Amino acid sequence: MNTFGDSFTFTSFGESHSAAIGGVLDGVPAGLHIDLDLIRANLDRRAGRNQQSAAGVSARAKNEADEVEWLSGVLDGVTLGTPVAFLIRNKDARPEDYEAFKHSFRQAHADSTYEAKYGIRDWRGGGRASARETTARVVAGSVAQQMLAEQGITIRATLVQVGAETRPGHFDETIARYRADGDSIGGIIRCEVTGLPTGLGEPIFDKLQAHLAYAILSINACKGFDYGSGFDGVTQPGSIANRQSGGLLGGITDGTTLSFRCVFKPTPSTPKAFAQMQNEKIVNRPIVNRSDSCVAVRAVPVVEAMTALVLANFIAITKKIQKNHSSM
Amino acid sequence: MNTFGDSFTFTSFGESHSAAIGGVLDGVPAGLHIDLDLIRANLDRRAGRNQQSAAGVSARAKNEADEVEWLSGVLDGVTLGTPVAFLIRNKDARPEDYEAFKHSFRQAHADSTYEAKYGIRDWRGGGRASARETTARVVAGSVAQQMLAEQGITIRATLVQVGAETRPGHFDETIARYRADGDSIGGIIRCEVTGLPTGLGEPIFDKLQAHLAYAILSINACKGFDYGSGFDGVTQPGSIANRQSGGLLGGITDGTTLSFRCVFKPTPSTPKAFAQMQNEKIVNRPIVNRSDSCVAVRAVPVVEAMTALVLANFIAITKKIQKNHSSM
Amino acid sequence: MNTFGDSFTFTSFGESHSAAIGGVLDGVPAGLHIDLDLIRANLDRRAGRNQQSAAGVSARAKNEADEVEWLSGVLDGVTLGTPVAFLIRNKDARPEDYEAFKHSFRQAHADSTYEAKYGIRDWRGGGRASARETTARVVAGSVAQQMLAEQGITIRATLVQVGAETRPGHFDETIARYRADGDSIGGIIRCEVTGLPTGLGEPIFDKLQAHLAYAILSINACKGFDYGSGFDGVTQPGSIANRQSGGLLGGITDGTTLSFRCVFKPTPSTPKAFAQMQNEKIVNRPIVNRSDSCVAVRAVPVVEAMTALVLANFIAITKKIQKNHSSM
Amino acid sequence: MNTFGDSFTFTSFGESHSAAIGGVLDGVPAGLHIDLDLIRANLDRRAGRNQQSAAGVSARAKNEADEVEWLSGVLDGVTLGTPVAFLIRNKDARPEDYEAFKHSFRQAHADSTYEAKYGIRDWRGGGRASARETTARVVAGSVAQQMLAEQGITIRATLVQVGAETRPGHFDETIARYRADGDSIGGIIRCEVTGLPTGLGEPIFDKLQAHLAYAILSINACKGFDYGSGFDGVTQPGSIANRQSGGLLGGITDGTTLSFRCVFKPTPSTPKAFAQMQNEKIVNRPIVNRSDSCVAVRAVPVVEAMTALVLANFIAITKKIQKNHSSM
Repeated sequence: MNTFGDSFTFTSFGESHSAAIGGVLDGVPAGLHIDLDLIRANLDRRAGRNQQSAAGVSARAKNEADEVEWLSGVLDGVTLGTPVAFLIRNKDARPEDYEAFKHSFRQAHADSTYEAKYGIRDWRGGGRASARETTARVVAGSVAQQMLAEQGITIRATLVQVGAETRPGHFDETIARYRADGDSIGGIIRCEVTGLPTGLGEPIFDKLQAHLAYAILSINACKGFDYGSGFDGVTQPGSIANRQSGGLLGGITDGTTLSFRCVFKPTPSTPKAFAQMQNEKIVNRPIVNRSDSCVAVRAVPVVEAMTALVLANFIAITKKIQKNHSSM
Repeated sequence: MNTFGDSFTFTSFGESHSAAIGGVLDGVPAGLHIDLDLIRANLDRRAGRNQQSAAGVSARAKNEADEVEWLSGVLDGVTLGTPVAFLIRNKDARPEDYEAFKHSFRQAHADSTYEAKYGIRDWRGGGRASARETTARVVAGSVAQQMLAEQGITIRATLVQVGAETRPGHFDETIARYRADGDSIGGIIRCEVTGLPTGLGEPIFDKLQAHLAYAILSINACKGFDYGSGFDGVTQPGSIANRQSGGLLGGITDGTTLSFRCVFKPTPSTPKAFAQMQNEKIVNRPIVNRSDSCVAVRAVPVVEAMTALVLANFIAITKKIQKNHSSM
Repeated sequence: MNTFGDSFTFTSFGESHSAAIGGVLDGVPAGLHIDLDLIRANLDRRAGRNQQSAAGVSARAKNEADEVEWLSGVLDGVTLGTPVAFLIRNKDARPEDYEAFKHSFRQAHADSTYEAKYGIRDWRGGGRASARETTARVVAGSVAQQMLAEQGITIRATLVQVGAETRPGHFDETIARYRADGDSIGGIIRCEVTGLPTGLGEPIFDKLQAHLAYAILSINACKGFDYGSGFDGVTQPGSIANRQSGGLLGGITDGTTLSFRCVFKPTPSTPKAFAQMQNEKIVNRPIVNRSDSCVAVRAVPVVEAMTALVLANFIAITKKIQKNHSSM
Repeated sequence: MNTFGDSFTFTSFGESHSAAIGGVLDGVPAGLHIDLDLIRANLDRRAGRNQQSAAGVSARAKNEADEVEWLSGVLDGVTLGTPVAFLIRNKDARPEDYEAFKHSFRQAHADSTYEAKYGIRDWRGGGRASARETTARVVAGSVAQQMLAEQGITIRATLVQVGAETRPGHFDETIARYRADGDSIGGIIRCEVTGLPTGLGEPIFDKLQAHLAYAILSINACKGFDYGSGFDGVTQPGSIANRQSGGLLGGITDGTTLSFRCVFKPTPSTPKAFAQMQNEKIVNRPIVNRSDSCVAVRAVPVVEAMTALVLANFIAITKKIQKNHSSM
C-alpha cells in the first residue's frame, strides 16, 4: 500500500510529525552516481524556495529543512545494486499548532476519512496524509530522473494555468489576489517528456497513460489527468483529434513528445474557509499561515518525480522484453 | 501485464481474430450465484444492441454474437471459490476486411507502436489492441458488479456529452451529423457509485481515485479522467471547490456518492480520415462501415465494468483491514 | 492465488470435473515457435504413458486424453507476445465414481480442509485439489522449457529413490510389491539444470533456491525440498560440505550444475487405507483402481515444469538488470 | 526483490557495514502495542546472547549492539496503521578485518556470484549478503509474532540436531569438538506452530507449505525444508505416512500442530577451510574468530521470524475470504 512500482520500486514511510520520513528504492542499478545537487534543487522547488511562482507558498514551507541521510545502498556516492534507503528528520515539530484538531476535523481534509478507516490517527499536522510525505517522493523521483537521464530522457513539468489565468507571468498576482481575500485557488500543470524510445508501455492494463494517471492521481489535491487531445478534444471531430496523440498510441509510446496535464484543487485550509467553519461551529481556533494559497505551485516537482518513477519502472520492463525478443 | 487487481484479479486473453477471447477471475468468493441476465444485458450494451444512443454504433457491432462459455469455477450456476474461467468464441472471422493492413498501418491506431514493440503483430482487425478485448472486461466486471450488489453498492455510468452537445436527447442527431460527414466525434461519460462504505481506499499510492484513473485510462480511446471539482474546478476558489469532493477525501471514500468523468476521443478510422490517408498515400483501400462514429457510446458499460473491478478489489482489501483492527 | 511468477506468469484454472482445465501464460516473448511434440511428450509422461516406471501408474491415468486447444497468443504456431491461453477438455467425466464422497471426506486428502475453508466444494474427484490440475502446469512449463532451451538451458528430473530402493532398475518391482499389498509408497526425485548463466537469483528474499522450493512444494503430495549438501549434509563438517553448493551461492547461480531433490509422500487413497477407514466407519464404499501406487512416478515432468516456470521468470528478471547495468 | 509478503509486507535494507540496516513494515493494523521486550529478547537470541547452545556463537556476535530506532508508524508505543519503519545503526565498523577480501573472494561465500551479477560489491563483511541482514528480519518477525499472539498463535523453533547428535543436552560439546578442530558443523531446526485456525493456505500455488519453504530457504545457509512425513517418510507405506500431515492437507491447515524442519549447512569460513585455501593460493590472510562454528544456533529466532512473516500475511488474506463468504 505504500510501495510504488514493481520492477523498480519505491517504499515510502513517515508521518508529518514522526521521527522521520523517508523511503527505500529497490531495483536501482549498480554503478549510478547519485547527483545530490539535483536532489537538493528538486527539494528546494518542492519547499517553495525556487519556484515559478513564490506567492503561492507559505512561510513555513520555505523554512523547511530537508536534509537527506543515506542509510544503505550507496558506497562513496555510487549505488551498489542493493536497496537505497534514506530518511529526512522531521525538525519542524510544532504539533501544538494542530492541537485544536486532536478532537475536531478540518473540512475537506482527510482527517475524518482516516478516523473512520483506522479508528486511530496521528492528528499532528495531518500525519500520514500531510503533503510532507511528498518530500520522500521527490528524493526517490530524483534518483529515477538520473536513471532516465542516462538514457537521454528528460522530464519537465510547468504550471500552465492558475484559476482562469493562463499567462505565466501573471500567476503571482493571481495567487496574491486570492490570498489577500483569505482564499485559495487551483492550478493546472503540463508535463512533457522527451527522449523516450518508441514501444514503451503495454497494450491492455499496463498502458503507459494508465500508469501515469495512477501515479499523478496519487498526489495530494490532484483532481484530474488527461493527455493528448484530453478533455478539450471532446469537441473536435476525429479528422482533427487524430493529430494529438500526446505521444502514445494504444498505450505505447509513438516516439513523439509525451504530454499530459493534471489539475490541483485549491487548499481547503484557508482563513475564509475557517471563518465559514466557525460559523457552522466545526472548529474553534484559527489556522495561521501554514498552508499554501496555490498548492499547484509546489506540486510541479512532485509531478516530475512521480512521472520519473513510472518511466523508470517501464524502462526496466521494456528492456527485458526487447532483450528476450532479440535473443530468439 | 494482462492481469488486473491484486486480491481480486482478472486475467484477460485473446485477439480480435484468435480462436477466442476470455479471462480468468481469481478471488471470487464461493457461493455467488452468477447472474447471466446481467452479463447478457451488459454485453448487449457494449455491442450497441441496447444503447442510450444507437447512432454511434456500427452495424457490425450490433451483429456480434457474444456467447459466454464457462470453463471452471462454477457448479450449477454457483461459484466454488476457485478460478472462474470463461471464453467467447470469435465468430466474426472476416480477416480479409483487414488484409490491406497486413503491410500498412492505420493512422492513430496502435498498429505502428505494436510493430515497433514486438516485431510481430496480429494484423487481423487490430489483434490484441482491438476494442473487442473489452468484451472480456464486461463479463468480468459484471461478476464484480454482482459481488458489489450483494453489499448494496450500485454503479451507473451515463453519456453526458457528445462533441459540444450536453443535452442527452440530442446525442443521436449530433453523432449522425458527424457520421454523415464521414467523420467521428468524442464523448464524455460520467460514472456514479452509491452505497459505498466510508473508509475505502488507502492514503498514499493506493488512493481510490488513483486506481480508478488507472482502470479507466486502460480503456481504448480514453484520454482523460477527473473527479469531484475536476478540471473545471480550476477557476473556483478554495471556499467553493471545497464542496465537491467527488466522494473521496485523501484517497478514501467519505460516504457521499462517488462521481468521476472520463473522455473518449473520436475513432480515427473514418472515411474522411481514410480520404486524407489516401491523399498522403498511407493506405490504398477503403474502410467500410466497421467502426463506430462515437466510441464513447459503447464505452459506457466498459467504464462500469472497470469501476466494478477496482471496487471489488478494494472491498476485499478493506474488509481485511477492518477485521484485523476489530480483533485487536 | 492461482497465478505463478511475476514477469513471466502462468494463471491456472479448472477443476478435475469442470468443463475444462487450462491456463494463461503472460510474458511469452513474440516469435517463439511452439513445440507441440515436446508438450505432447511431457503430457504423456505425466499421464504415465511413457515413464521410467509404469508400475506406479493407474489404468485411468494411462487412458486420459489430453488434447490441448490453443485459444490465443499464437498465429500459425508462432507466439505473438500477447497472452497465450489454452485449455484441455475434461473428457473423463465419471463423477459417479466419487458420489460416495459427496457427504464424506477421504482421509489425508484435502476434502476436509477445503470444506472448512470455503463452505462449498466440488466433491467430484477432488475438484480443484485434484492432481489433474498439474496437466495445465505441464503445458505451461513445456512452453517455458522451450524459452530456456533457446538460451541453452536444459532441465532433467529423475526418480532416484522409491521407498528404501535407490537402484533405478528395481523401482518397478518395489512399487508392484506395495501395490500387491493394497498399499502405496513414496519417492524422491532429483532435478538437475545445466547451461544456466552465472548470476541468476537475488540476494535476499528472491534467492533462486527459495523460489524453487516454493514452486516444488506447491506440487500435490510433495513433502520436502533440499539442494546441494541438503539434509544429508548435516553430518558433514564445513571443510567437506563446502564443496556441494548445488549450483547456488548466496541465492545466486555459480555456474555449476543446479541440483536439488524433492520427496513425494505415498498416495493416501489405497485399498489398505480404505479398509482401515471402513473399520473406523469413515467411508462406506471401496475406492477402485483410480489412484497411483507411487505418485512420484508421474510427478517427474511436473517437477521439470515448475522448475522451468521459475527459471523462465528469473531469466527475464536478470536480463533486465544486466541490461540496465551495462547501459550506465 | 527486497520486499517480503503481499498484504502484510516487510521491505528490508542495509549492508553489513552501511550506515544502518532496517526495514519498513506495511499492513500492520492500527492499535497494536509494540512489545519492545520480545524484540529485545529475539535480537539477543539471534546475537547469541541467550541461546540453547552458546558454544556455536562467535565473540563478535555476542558483542553486537542492536539498538532499534523507530522512525514512523508508531505513536506512544502504539501502531498507527501507517508504515512502521525502523533502523539499527551498524556500530561494529571494522572493515579493515575484511580488507583482504577487497580483491579476493571467500570460498563458498556469495562474494563471487555477487561480483558476477552486479560488477560491483560492498566487500566489507559480505555487504548485503552478510547474515547481519537477518537482524532486520528478527525485528520485523517479532512484530508479526505479536500480531499472531493476539489471535492465540504461538511459534516455537528448536535446534534438534547438530552433526549426528540428536540429544539436546549434548549440542554444546559437539560444536566445541568441531571448533577445536578449526572446523564447523551443520544443524537441523524444527519449528512448531500452535493455535492456527483451520483453513489457512490456498489450494494451488499459495499452499502454506510452499510459502513457508520460500521463506525458510531465503535464510542464509539454509539448504533444505520438509514438513510432516518429510524426507524420512520416503520409506513408509501410505497406510503409515498418512498420519503425519505436519498440520497441512492440500496446502491448507487442518487444525493440528504445524510442524516443519530445516537444515543449515556449516559456515564455510573456518581456520581449516582457510588453511586449504592458502594451500590453493585463494586467500593470503587468516580469518580470525568472527564466524560461528554452528550457524544453526543463531538461526533459530530467524526461522521463527520468517515463519511469523508468512503466517501474518496469510492471516490477513484468510480473514478477507471468510468475511466475503459470510456476507453472501
